[in-house]
Amino acid sequence: MYSFTCDYNEGAHPAIIRRLAETNLDQEPGYGEDDFCASAAARIRDAAGCPGADVFFLTGGTQTNYTVIDGMLRQHEGVIAAQTGHIAVHEAGAVEFSGHKVLTLPQHEGKIDASELRSYLKTFYQDDSHTHMVYPGMVYISFPTEYGTIYSRAELQAIKDVCMDFNLSLFVDGARLGYGLASPAADIDMKDLARLCDVFYIGGTKVGALCGEAVVFPRGNAPEHFFTIMKQHGALLAKGRLLGVQFDTLFTDGLYEKISAHAIEMAMRLKEVFVSKGIPFYIDSPTNQQFPILSAGQIDSLLGPIGFEIWERRPDGSAVTRFATSWATPPEAIDALKEALGSAESK
Amino acid sequence: MYSFTCDYNEGAHPAIIRRLAETNLDQEPGYGEDDFCASAAARIRDAAGCPGADVFFLTGGTQTNYTVIDGMLRQHEGVIAAQTGHIAVHEAGAVEFSGHKVLTLPQHEGKIDASELRSYLKTFYQDDSHTHMVYPGMVYISFPTEYGTIYSRAELQAIKDVCMDFNLSLFVDGARLGYGLASPAADIDMKDLARLCDVFYIGGTKVGALCGEAVVFPRGNAPEHFFTIMKQHGALLAKGRLLGVQFDTLFTDGLYEKISAHAIEMAMRLKEVFVSKGIPFYIDSPTNQQFPILSAGQIDSLLGPIGFEIWERRPDGSAVTRFATSWATPPEAIDALKEALGSAESK
Amino acid sequence: MYSFTCDYNEGAHPAIIRRLAETNLDQEPGYGEDDFCASAAARIRDAAGCPGADVFFLTGGTQTNYTVIDGMLRQHEGVIAAQTGHIAVHEAGAVEFSGHKVLTLPQHEGKIDASELRSYLKTFYQDDSHTHMVYPGMVYISFPTEYGTIYSRAELQAIKDVCMDFNLSLFVDGARLGYGLASPAADIDMKDLARLCDVFYIGGTKVGALCGEAVVFPRGNAPEHFFTIMKQHGALLAKGRLLGVQFDTLFTDGLYEKISAHAIEMAMRLKEVFVSKGIPFYIDSPTNQQFPILSAGQIDSLLGPIGFEIWERRPDGSAVTRFATSWATPPEAIDALKEALGSAESK
Amino acid sequence: MYSFTCDYNEGAHPAIIRRLAETNLDQEPGYGEDDFCASAAARIRDAAGCPGADVFFLTGGTQTNYTVIDGMLRQHEGVIAAQTGHIAVHEAGAVEFSGHKVLTLPQHEGKIDASELRSYLKTFYQDDSHTHMVYPGMVYISFPTEYGTIYSRAELQAIKDVCMDFNLSLFVDGARLGYGLASPAADIDMKDLARLCDVFYIGGTKVGALCGEAVVFPRGNAPEHFFTIMKQHGALLAKGRLLGVQFDTLFTDGLYEKISAHAIEMAMRLKEVFVSKGIPFYIDSPTNQQFPILSAGQIDSLLGPIGFEIWERRPDGSAVTRFATSWATPPEAIDALKEALGSAESK
Repeated sequence: MYSFTCDYNEGAHPAIIRRLAETNLDQEPGYGEDDFCASAAARIRDAAGCPGADVFFLTGGTQTNYTVIDGMLRQHEGVIAAQTGHIAVHEAGAVEFSGHKVLTLPQHEGKIDASELRSYLKTFYQDDSHTHMVYPGMVYISFPTEYGTIYSRAELQAIKDVCMDFNLSLFVDGARLGYGLASPAADIDMKDLARLCDVFYIGGTKVGALCGEAVVFPRGNAPEHFFTIMKQHGALLAKGRLLGVQFDTLFTDGLYEKISAHAIEMAMRLKEVFVSKGIPFYIDSPTNQQFPILSAGQIDSLLGPIGFEIWERRPDGSAVTRFATSWATPPEAIDALKEALGSAESK
Repeated sequence: MYSFTCDYNEGAHPAIIRRLAETNLDQEPGYGEDDFCASAAARIRDAAGCPGADVFFLTGGTQTNYTVIDGMLRQHEGVIAAQTGHIAVHEAGAVEFSGHKVLTLPQHEGKIDASELRSYLKTFYQDDSHTHMVYPGMVYISFPTEYGTIYSRAELQAIKDVCMDFNLSLFVDGARLGYGLASPAADIDMKDLARLCDVFYIGGTKVGALCGEAVVFPRGNAPEHFFTIMKQHGALLAKGRLLGVQFDTLFTDGLYEKISAHAIEMAMRLKEVFVSKGIPFYIDSPTNQQFPILSAGQIDSLLGPIGFEIWERRPDGSAVTRFATSWATPPEAIDALKEALGSAESK
Repeated sequence: MYSFTCDYNEGAHPAIIRRLAETNLDQEPGYGEDDFCASAAARIRDAAGCPGADVFFLTGGTQTNYTVIDGMLRQHEGVIAAQTGHIAVHEAGAVEFSGHKVLTLPQHEGKIDASELRSYLKTFYQDDSHTHMVYPGMVYISFPTEYGTIYSRAELQAIKDVCMDFNLSLFVDGARLGYGLASPAADIDMKDLARLCDVFYIGGTKVGALCGEAVVFPRGNAPEHFFTIMKQHGALLAKGRLLGVQFDTLFTDGLYEKISAHAIEMAMRLKEVFVSKGIPFYIDSPTNQQFPILSAGQIDSLLGPIGFEIWERRPDGSAVTRFATSWATPPEAIDALKEALGSAESK
Repeated sequence: MYSFTCDYNEGAHPAIIRRLAETNLDQEPGYGEDDFCASAAARIRDAAGCPGADVFFLTGGTQTNYTVIDGMLRQHEGVIAAQTGHIAVHEAGAVEFSGHKVLTLPQHEGKIDASELRSYLKTFYQDDSHTHMVYPGMVYISFPTEYGTIYSRAELQAIKDVCMDFNLSLFVDGARLGYGLASPAADIDMKDLARLCDVFYIGGTKVGALCGEAVVFPRGNAPEHFFTIMKQHGALLAKGRLLGVQFDTLFTDGLYEKISAHAIEMAMRLKEVFVSKGIPFYIDSPTNQQFPILSAGQIDSLLGPIGFEIWERRPDGSAVTRFATSWATPPEAIDALKEALGSAESK
């Protein structure tokens, strides 16, 4: 049985486990002041083409989102997100817990639209009562989005332009960043991303690590005392080495890119399996999450050999489903899926 | 060179690294719903003698403290701690960030005193203006304390009695719990602790793990929806397996106790080295942190072969210092310390 | 010139000013423990038909909303409101500042729909990932709404039923309560309201007082220590007498009802003026706020003698406007409006 | 019977009541945009000698304190106060509710000491672990203090110097500002105060108003969007006119100074009564709060004709008491006190 339910079913890339074992008894200072973190940060600055970047390592996505957002906003400001944005839906109100409103815009396949953003901001500032409202202080987007889609360079530039016109910072949640950049549909690389936003993070948890997200402020523009703000938000890991070793390994010899490319290759094969069976998709995703709409019979056939997530069950028994590949997905799992689906057909 | 600066200089106990490697590609669900967490929780319930306990795994100490405290208090309540308590000093105001005041009591070698606690509470409720003040809702103690000292059974019972009289919950920060329970001075075990408090945590980060703290609500008395509260506080790890594997390993065949006992044995040898040189202590600690007061010459001799922390430099060049042993401290490090100190003498 | 821009343009009902003057030098204790507050609370319990009610006096609407909401919710809970609800739009994120998300439902002329509420709640609890989401803990409605509309008894009962099925409390923002209950369209009175919700407040600021809102927990169901929670939220007035005197006056000899009825009478006359001119309305409001859609010419004619609020300017120069009457609106102001509109016609 | 229990037992100065009555039906915009607030702000700028000041009107002391503090601090910063400071003790944790720690220094007759402040700050920044601690961002002092004492010009200058050296803002809680400045012991006036601090407020509630505190940022240095921050904190009064009229009246023809001087004259007479009876004081207060230590017999004799507050009852039945005069204290009340005490003697 192989499960495609999510992209964090396995542990870490074996190279990380090996490196953890090798360095295990080296003595290092805590709180991210170890040599591994320093090396990892240097490699990330290099990969992102921003030699002056501030780089911090946190443990998980929700933690990273709310620490960055609260760290960058003033208290009367909120953060703009798609109505399907992770911070708007699936983070248990962490942003609100830290005192800020999530201001939602309509989503289009998980993305916000620059012209709708501009229109919202114009309307906001034209409204005489806007001083009684939450000020927009930041735009949050995810890359890829919760629906697996990605922004094009032109779309990002358009959003960035609006942000500059209205003095907003732009934050890119890259929990699955590798899978977005490795997509054949991507027309940007990490250096472009670093140029186009004010802060982004490189997801480790879903891309080869046991845990960990690397926050990058590309122009050395971290809020002053961000280290202390991390501590205050419960986001400072005592043994920062655990994060340093992992990101140092991921950014050595292009491992992060390689394993991301593998996940995408698996996703495209998986997509092809569904396409070849004439199965429709809820959304046309170019990244590691795929959303086929399966019939009741197809679902039945898969259950057992193949794990996946039911997103939305429909009255006729069919369902929107999610299949996620990852750095760990073996080619054999795609074959197994194909076979299981084939048997569905012949029933 | 060997560093005694803190008890989180190394990675994890090798058995943990091995187990992480062995289980690395097993597919498991996220968010602590994996088999390892289930097994670890069962072993912890057993070790703590509380079969009905709720057990949760979080990543670090500050995160655990403020999530538990905010989860258990109502919003007008504060938490009582020693003025030297970790939450009162070294957590960057995480408790206040979550909206609660830390109400401080005098410390006596890092401990609070039950009669002073009672007196504070009596005075509070007798004060006509107490409805304008922060209500005490919880008592926080650390075991061992920040000074390495531990509460006796009688002291804990006395504090518990006061808590019951004034309807306060009792929370024990066990970031170094193993080292406290393994101390020759300890007259309680984990089962006693579980009986005497409302919630405690078993520190992993400082006792053999890469990261992780296991929160135990001994009588199944976790606040409702504590899982969601963890998520909201950025304290829910996606790959909960990382914590599950570690605690499952630590609580198999008494590993947690064994490695804690090793650290204490090393601490007692280290203490003996200082005693044998006639070196005084700032505090008489029975656990893995020792606080010798070294002369300027002694400090000079150690620098190089031996790392340690300067706590408080005095005008004459002497200093209160901290030496911490851990599960990882090799006996040779004690010998090296002894030798270095010997050379100090002969200068 | 008379301004209909809002219902808080004037000071207080003259009876209140007189009473403040008469009692001015009486010595009274602070913080709502004065005789006026006690008397006002008794009169309110009587008017609301709930002899066991807890009654508290706060200063303003936003303050009241966020103090009540934060006081009643647990930290992982949010409050459901119409997307046009005051707390969702015009309170500068006060609810989020206190740590809670405002969960929005579609609005229908400013109201939420009980079946949509039920559907939202069913979907929420059916979603496997709901433990990663903000739990709905309360429903907030305004009576009248921000669009001047009111809920019928049947609508309220239906919402209440859903709340009981899903264990939510129901909070009614009555900033303009008097104007809602005095409406010819209302089929409930204050006693009904008290039966149908868990907490409501009686707006003073917009209904005859200089400031002040009276919060009523009809069944003595105030959160424990709500007094201290008020203090913590900056919502406890030192000279509570200022609020006590005002509400005591408003609830003596039915003054609150009488002045509310006057405002509604003025509103109906004002509505009739627009209707008689064939002017359409943005929404059919049965309370003191009216929303005529005026042409550019009509707007021009009014400017000068008549003040009102432009809500939404349209490309052709017409606009949705808001006219608010109040306890203080003189009949002559309606005549002046009629005359000014008449002159518009003849142009 | 006359009560000296506090300085907010009565309503407002009669001139305020008159002015409220006279202006009652004038139509004015809300939220502090009325003419009265504008006029009051202009008069306050004049009285404080700071023509560029930003002036805001809030309703009460706790509300003002936590809104100003939260508005000026960054999230990792705390506010330094005397351990007896109002924000540290009697505001139900409002500052912590807004996310900030109150960092306490020892009090000396209610005051902090500039050299202790400097020493604390030096120690803080020398501590290697200070990045794990709450950063001091502001100094809060009350003038007069909770013990009725006042800072001299030299003391304020010394504190200001430390603040400038360590980049802290200085906030003066002037809930009883008039009574401090009117004291014969005061060697500063409001213009001096404005020069010496970054923000202060002029207490209305305790000095002649029904409610209201005027916050002054002397150099136009209000945090950007402070209006919205007030709204977010529930501190924006809809009918700002209520505050505008009051402060406009208080700052017309020196009324604020005159009524403050009256309270001080009454306090000095009251003090003389106790002195003449040989009664000792807990503290030598030069302002409107006096703290005589009364014997059990003296206490008994006063009960009935004279109200006062028992601060601290002693085993022998004697007590530290508080007597507060105010703008409203009639000379006859002092006579009545004298007489009652006289009868005590003769018993």
